[in-house]
Amino acid sequence: MNRHPIEIQIEKADKAIVAEDFDVLMDIYTDDAVLVIEPGRNAVGKNEIRKAFEAIAVYFKNGLQVEQNGMEIIESKETALVLANTVVSGPGFPATERKATYVFNKSPGGNWLCSIDNSYGHEIIDKNA
Amino acid sequence: MNRHPIEIQIEKADKAIVAEDFDVLMDIYTDDAVLVIEPGRNAVGKNEIRKAFEAIAVYFKNGLQVEQNGMEIIESKETALVLANTVVSGPGFPATERKATYVFNKSPGGNWLCSIDNSYGHEIIDKNA
Repeated sequence: MNRHPIEIQIEKADKAIVAEDFDVLMDIYTDDAVLVIEPGRNAVGKNEIRKAFEAIAVYFKNGLQVEQNGMEIIESKETALVLANTVVSGPGFPATERKATYVFNKSPGGNWLCSIDNSYGHEIIDKNA
Repeated sequence: MNRHPIEIQIEKADKAIVAEDFDVLMDIYTDDAVLVIEPGRNAVGKNEIRKAFEAIAVYFKNGLQVEQNGMEIIESKETALVLANTVVSGPGFPATERKATYVFNKSPGGNWLCSIDNSYGHEIIDKNA
């Protein structure tokens, strides 16, 4: 089965997170992307997102592992919704599966870029009040 | 607190579903919107979505009730992700809470329209294989 270009982008992002290659990682986001750092706290734009990932890497003792345990993509023209079972682990952090939700936008060049990265899914409800 | 225009759109949609006012309901969708009818089965475009809602109304014995029990909206420029606890019930159908995921796009006129309507959230994973 052909893989969806978004699936390839997410795999690239996961590898970049594990390798702490933040230049490659930032290429996957739109300029105005929003990352949910934790429920109730967002990073907006590439500068803030990069800083957040640098802090997350330290928090996970430079041993963060990310993998996807099942994923579905729903596409409507230049917008796509990704539902994923994202498994996060690290030294001293037992594997935790998150019901992640990602939104991608197709750029005029045809590239799919992540505009909303919410790995916490519905956990954010009532945390932003 | 000011309500987000998307929250108002969703309230309008819920009321239209309950009232079976499909003209009003279709105004809330983009032309190329995708509705998850049930895991593994999608309706694409206003014609298919309207037919799906007509069938859903009959399935719920013309007594479908929809309400939102908590909602969060993450906005990035012209795209927004909605996480909602959507409660569905009807005659003979006990209330069921779904971890719904909706994507809205801001039209050039400034209106937020629903492009992806997946009230089943992560339940769709591995159902489209």
